[in-house]
Amino acid sequence: MMTSTIEAQAGGVATPRGYRTAGVSAGIKANGGLDLALLVSETPATAAAVFTLNRAQAAPVLISKEHLARSGGVARAVIVNSGCANACTGDAGLQAAREMASETARLAECAVEQVLVASTGVIGVALPMDKLRAGIPVAFGALGTDQGPAAARAIMTTDPFPKEAAATADIGGRTVTIGGMAKGSGMIEPMMATMLGFVTTDAAVPPALLDRALREAVNDTFNAITVDGECSTNDCVILLANGASGASVDETTYDQFVHALKTVCLTLALGIVRGGEGATKVVTVTVTGAASDEEARRAAKAIANSPLVKTAVHGGDPNWGRLIAVAGRAGVAFELSRAAVMIGSTVLFKDGRPYDEAAPQAAAYLKGRDISLSVNLGAGRASSTVWTCDLSAEYVKINADYRT
Amino acid sequence: MMTSTIEAQAGGVATPRGYRTAGVSAGIKANGGLDLALLVSETPATAAAVFTLNRAQAAPVLISKEHLARSGGVARAVIVNSGCANACTGDAGLQAAREMASETARLAECAVEQVLVASTGVIGVALPMDKLRAGIPVAFGALGTDQGPAAARAIMTTDPFPKEAAATADIGGRTVTIGGMAKGSGMIEPMMATMLGFVTTDAAVPPALLDRALREAVNDTFNAITVDGECSTNDCVILLANGASGASVDETTYDQFVHALKTVCLTLALGIVRGGEGATKVVTVTVTGAASDEEARRAAKAIANSPLVKTAVHGGDPNWGRLIAVAGRAGVAFELSRAAVMIGSTVLFKDGRPYDEAAPQAAAYLKGRDISLSVNLGAGRASSTVWTCDLSAEYVKINADYRT
Repeated sequence: MMTSTIEAQAGGVATPRGYRTAGVSAGIKANGGLDLALLVSETPATAAAVFTLNRAQAAPVLISKEHLARSGGVARAVIVNSGCANACTGDAGLQAAREMASETARLAECAVEQVLVASTGVIGVALPMDKLRAGIPVAFGALGTDQGPAAARAIMTTDPFPKEAAATADIGGRTVTIGGMAKGSGMIEPMMATMLGFVTTDAAVPPALLDRALREAVNDTFNAITVDGECSTNDCVILLANGASGASVDETTYDQFVHALKTVCLTLALGIVRGGEGATKVVTVTVTGAASDEEARRAAKAIANSPLVKTAVHGGDPNWGRLIAVAGRAGVAFELSRAAVMIGSTVLFKDGRPYDEAAPQAAAYLKGRDISLSVNLGAGRASSTVWTCDLSAEYVKINADYRT
Repeated sequence: MMTSTIEAQAGGVATPRGYRTAGVSAGIKANGGLDLALLVSETPATAAAVFTLNRAQAAPVLISKEHLARSGGVARAVIVNSGCANACTGDAGLQAAREMASETARLAECAVEQVLVASTGVIGVALPMDKLRAGIPVAFGALGTDQGPAAARAIMTTDPFPKEAAATADIGGRTVTIGGMAKGSGMIEPMMATMLGFVTTDAAVPPALLDRALREAVNDTFNAITVDGECSTNDCVILLANGASGASVDETTYDQFVHALKTVCLTLALGIVRGGEGATKVVTVTVTGAASDEEARRAAKAIANSPLVKTAVHGGDPNWGRLIAVAGRAGVAFELSRAAVMIGSTVLFKDGRPYDEAAPQAAAYLKGRDISLSVNLGAGRASSTVWTCDLSAEYVKINADYRT
């Protein structure tokens, strides 16, 4: 089980060798902020990706899947806009996503299927293609190895801060670097991938191994977070491996590579939680005593998405009964007489009886910003950890006025 | 499909003949408000009930189930306290619920198994039995046929107003009356029953038919509402039929009886939604074009529980893309190219293309207090309607400070 104490390094998608990136303003966001990010690998990179399982997939998701299939998992560039999701936009939206890719391919001098596309922002509004046609060349002009922070800002929507991370691994005596960036911060409960995540490495990784590494890392990181239980139409995590370090990952070095990849992904995922809409606290929910891993995850997600739990944490209210109530309705095996609840290290319910006299101690703990909640279902030996944030009045404010 | 325009009458649990009720203050609530309700039938009544499916069932739920089984579905009295849920209270809680019943049975001069018990309030705190021992005789002293409003107030927790309703039906030339009261207002998404509902009738109804009528009525009313997707440890709806009208319900008059029963239940259920924690609007969510009734209900519940939908409604933001996004992740058959979204009577998405130009019209409509949202999944012919409320900053405020 991973904990929230991990050691990522400073850096982002252009930290591994052989990548350049840019973040510019194309005028898509009304406020003139950075809204167009470009990531280019100097050489064709092996590419793996996971996409939203939402059945209303956005045009850029459909086009990126098509390109990955046609290229056989090779990519040279990724073009990303914020401010408009290009989702539920019909044939015109597909055409717009194709044109984003073809304009990028023209300037990157590569085949169009080696370009992946992503968009994030309001659903159902047409992409302003005139602004993208003008902006994409500007992004190419701004490419640099020091532009990771600008790119990380250019993919933000309601995110309060950019999310970047890097880590290294020793692969056969050579150091490979993994770097990434991601954005949140509402409509977050990945069903396969989460909002937008972009991860690069200068390791060479065979396509099948890269795909396996990405799925394994995403399952324990991006797929283990939730802000509001919502899964968007645009979620994707893209991983590029260009081999510029001269090191190749194989079965013998897979574990070191995945460990570093998880470090980057978990740092980005926790950044999404910390920057969740209206969030003031990061909450680690650990469920133990489950009948299966799947039930442990389901119960942990139910607790992490419960508005009653999230508001209680927000208010510093040690209302542990809500944790029991959610566990009891989560549709998993649950034995009240063997169940237990801990807030931080304070036991509030155990073996069928309450220890409500410890509530003041738990209330003091809940004043902190990093909160741990543990529930033992009393039904088995499996466990799962997920991360979420509290639910504040600010979340309501942000989402009541998102478009207006 | 039922709509929200129904015709209930004024009245409550003591409106049908042969019932008396009371609502008094036993000192369980710190603010001294009414917190103990008593309902007595002059003669033994046939009783049916539905209880929470939460696996952490509260002591009063367990005791009421036991009593119904032992009495063969006959009840004389129901005793209810607010201010303390008597849930997760171990053996001491079971003992307390038994004592509430036995004290009530002594004063009602009936067998203990003819008393049903319910509690609502904070989980995990012991019932103050000294206050109940003193309060139950006071409640008996206050019994009257005009005390429905006091009883409806005595079962409230965070409810902003009491919920009462009555309706009549013509059964074989005689008028029978059905009356009820209910309370919300958070932790509301019934999995079988909802929080607390008490319904009486002066019809005579055979036990099997009464049970069938209650389940049918609850499915379309209490089980079709949600405030926050939470299912409590204490939910129950109890229906008593004492035959005092002299009319008997049988298969030939079942439909008239169920129609009146649904009228009472839906009025109470919509009252719970209207009085949902922090609610400012009642939202009717209708899903059509589903592959099955079950998928229609699941999609409607997903929309009704979506914090992004509920906050958008609260803010009057016609962010219809969120409706598509939730339908797409609801785990049901969904065809984007045939899907449609309406806010009120304004079409915002149809046959795969957006009509975002109609958004201002929808925004004006959303300023109202009674909101209708319709989503066609484009996947079949089944439909379902559920009712919910908006999500406001006030919900967060109420639940961040519930105990403190």
